[in-house]
Amino acid sequence: MVCCRVTTAFYKRAIIAHQLVNCLTEIFVDRALARAKELDEYLKKTGKVIGPLHGLPISLKDQIRIKGLETTMGYVSWIGDYADKDAALVEILQECGAVPFVQTNVPQTLMWAETYNSIFGRTVNPYNRNLTSGGSSGGEGTLIALKGSPLGVGSDIGGSIRIPSLFNGLYGLRPSYNRVPYAGVVNSMEGQDSIPSVLGPLSNSLSGIKLFMQAVISAKPWLKDPLAIRKKWDDEAYALVEHGGGQKLCFGLLWNDGETVPHTPVIRALEITKAALLAAGHTVIVWKPYKHVELCGTVSYIWSAGATEDFKTVAAISGEPVISTMELAGEGTVVDAGFRPSGDNVTVSAYQLWQQQKLKTKLRQEYLAHWEATAKITGTGRPVDAIISPGAPYTAPPHGKNRDASYTTVWNALDYVACVFPVTKVDPSTDVKKPAHAFLSDRDKANYEMYDPKVFANAPVGLQLVGRTQEEEAVIAMTEIVDAALKANKARLAKL
Amino acid sequence: MVCCRVTTAFYKRAIIAHQLVNCLTEIFVDRALARAKELDEYLKKTGKVIGPLHGLPISLKDQIRIKGLETTMGYVSWIGDYADKDAALVEILQECGAVPFVQTNVPQTLMWAETYNSIFGRTVNPYNRNLTSGGSSGGEGTLIALKGSPLGVGSDIGGSIRIPSLFNGLYGLRPSYNRVPYAGVVNSMEGQDSIPSVLGPLSNSLSGIKLFMQAVISAKPWLKDPLAIRKKWDDEAYALVEHGGGQKLCFGLLWNDGETVPHTPVIRALEITKAALLAAGHTVIVWKPYKHVELCGTVSYIWSAGATEDFKTVAAISGEPVISTMELAGEGTVVDAGFRPSGDNVTVSAYQLWQQQKLKTKLRQEYLAHWEATAKITGTGRPVDAIISPGAPYTAPPHGKNRDASYTTVWNALDYVACVFPVTKVDPSTDVKKPAHAFLSDRDKANYEMYDPKVFANAPVGLQLVGRTQEEEAVIAMTEIVDAALKANKARLAKL
Repeated sequence: MVCCRVTTAFYKRAIIAHQLVNCLTEIFVDRALARAKELDEYLKKTGKVIGPLHGLPISLKDQIRIKGLETTMGYVSWIGDYADKDAALVEILQECGAVPFVQTNVPQTLMWAETYNSIFGRTVNPYNRNLTSGGSSGGEGTLIALKGSPLGVGSDIGGSIRIPSLFNGLYGLRPSYNRVPYAGVVNSMEGQDSIPSVLGPLSNSLSGIKLFMQAVISAKPWLKDPLAIRKKWDDEAYALVEHGGGQKLCFGLLWNDGETVPHTPVIRALEITKAALLAAGHTVIVWKPYKHVELCGTVSYIWSAGATEDFKTVAAISGEPVISTMELAGEGTVVDAGFRPSGDNVTVSAYQLWQQQKLKTKLRQEYLAHWEATAKITGTGRPVDAIISPGAPYTAPPHGKNRDASYTTVWNALDYVACVFPVTKVDPSTDVKKPAHAFLSDRDKANYEMYDPKVFANAPVGLQLVGRTQEEEAVIAMTEIVDAALKANKARLAKL
Repeated sequence: MVCCRVTTAFYKRAIIAHQLVNCLTEIFVDRALARAKELDEYLKKTGKVIGPLHGLPISLKDQIRIKGLETTMGYVSWIGDYADKDAALVEILQECGAVPFVQTNVPQTLMWAETYNSIFGRTVNPYNRNLTSGGSSGGEGTLIALKGSPLGVGSDIGGSIRIPSLFNGLYGLRPSYNRVPYAGVVNSMEGQDSIPSVLGPLSNSLSGIKLFMQAVISAKPWLKDPLAIRKKWDDEAYALVEHGGGQKLCFGLLWNDGETVPHTPVIRALEITKAALLAAGHTVIVWKPYKHVELCGTVSYIWSAGATEDFKTVAAISGEPVISTMELAGEGTVVDAGFRPSGDNVTVSAYQLWQQQKLKTKLRQEYLAHWEATAKITGTGRPVDAIISPGAPYTAPPHGKNRDASYTTVWNALDYVACVFPVTKVDPSTDVKKPAHAFLSDRDKANYEMYDPKVFANAPVGLQLVGRTQEEEAVIAMTEIVDAALKANKARLAKL
């Protein structure tokens, strides 16, 4: 009865993980075991698996509604709101044979890159509990890092899958808008149609990322979610037909975004990856950031346009405070949610919002031209195949200090597919603090000053591989290539 | 030199058409003939065509920018604004071998279903100049009806391709959002990302519709427009693999939308189509409208949220009036552009806008469930394959009377693919006015009262075939089946 045994192993491990890092919000073991038993019986009786995820335990962010369970999304206001229906994705996962067994912690509103709320408290980093788990899918990131789940589903509007993946040493995919069905999932700022949140997988293995995406897309999510794109899983794209078969790729390496120079360990991860790619016969060029600050500025404006009203409206149901800081000392303090462009008493009009959305489209157009123009310098006859980018200017920082999501948000603005992969860990003996450089901005200076090798010791260091819109298949395949190159180069260097 | 001869034939015919119905805004014969000559020489020299549209003259709505030409979109304010770059679609059409040769008239702002502006005046219906051409792609509809162009490109945010197609006896496709690249095209209400306008073809033939869509999609528009969906032309979808191979389809017939009963000729077109489909071995069921009024209400609110400010901002550049009526007597009158939900001095906030956008998504979700549920009653084991719907509750009405675009707009709200096909013409001896029915609404009563067979005599009558989001290939294939059934049944009846 393998499904029951696998589910049992993972739920026990998940409970241990929870005791260490406070990552869970719901544990529904009886239901999961009953489902696992059904699956075991089906296999025994028919000799067949029920679907591509037969018996796979899956953890779900506390935002993805499961019939009969509470999904509070960190709001006290939503305690007692039991779902009368599964989210479209949950239906699909169940049909594919998966076994949902836990829900995982999030920050109130989801609009934080750390994980704390007034119901479940704070989720901390399993590598160092003084560091943040990242967020908003922080429960997922830490649970999976502690092997309490083989595969989890998070959401990402500005980095919420990728940041916890980076900070916990995982693989994590941010798909394009509407490639994975969102219907039936609760959210902040619903109706904000310009930069939507997306669902995607986090896992210890890239094969988990691929398995999830292929299974979900092959289940025709557009029959359950009217916004899901009618686009089949594309084996040709996965075979990198449009990228020369993957034989000799050219990557653009983003060393900094023009605003903030990443900490030493992140730069070292870029150097390690560059060396591995060159050793594997690929080429790399420098990726010049194009108006990243402006792109992130439009995102900030668009969210801010209605976010405060949205948060306050939900919080008012229970009278709970809107959380205003992720600092340890400030838990629960009400000062300022930080989401308004122009002060408390100014309402952004629909027309003003449209002007920023128009600007964003213009910037996306320019970015596409910027990318296409690299065909002249790659030497492959193609534009750059993918960008390798930091996912943050630091590794997991202390609680309350994760305030800059620009390195992830820029790709949400562009709707580019991005897959996080682990590279190394912070090693204080190697990752010494460098002398100050000519700062690019105030933010850069503050970031430089925050770095202290001892504080960040042992934190995982990852990067993102970034491809074009709706290139999920190719991005997964190229991340496999990078990951294999990293492993091969590590083995080679170990032998020297 | 066949390309030159074809271009010459069409431009001469286009100029005659213009003298009859006032359909053109730009005529660039020298440029078109030079391009045709290049194509002829290329073919002579290489023995090959340059692309799938080699030598095909194409007309473009006066919204689609062509390098070096003015695109005013009916705004005096934009006179003298010469494009420094082709729109993405124009680049693709040229690469495919097409020969753009004229631009066609539109209403100022594009947000009218008729065609009049202060620069070029009014485009009238070639079947009866007392009737409207429809709009906003009215120049296209009339030019193509008069055989002044074999294929034209219009845009559709609430019916602007389909209404002129219906009113002028053409085929016209409204693709899903972002299947055809929009980049580089001017528009009203830019930045309104929730219900975007789409580009699509109008033609005298369905083969023209298919040719255009296949050529444009096969040119990978996502490499020129960051919003264009990365989704190949799907031959399996065109072969109706998900619709039983097209052998025995089940259509849902929408007799009315629950608010307005269409005029007699439109009902007759539905009856003709029903008989033809049954004779061809397909089945039909009644399509129950699901919250069409609510869906159109969200569209109206979302557009209204910033439309007036948008129109006024552009008009203010020249000081021209925002046109407020399409009535003959009222040309140029400034009263009320009709696009505000709550009066002159009330600004819709971004948060209020989001609430309507959220409602729209919820209604789309419900509509999908409504469609899927028909699997129980079709007898095919599948849900309804497509809906056959009126495109308006009337045929082309007199100028100024085309005030109800609900029958087209509802499908924009749902982002369903819709293809207009011609069925018959108004015949006053057959299409007599029926006795009054129990009116569904005030709008229904007014619509009933407007009908007078003599006024509408000879107007073309068409319908729409409506499929799911991003089902362009299947919708074209199913429209071919309906079209063939109509022609076969007409031939059969003629023999009796």
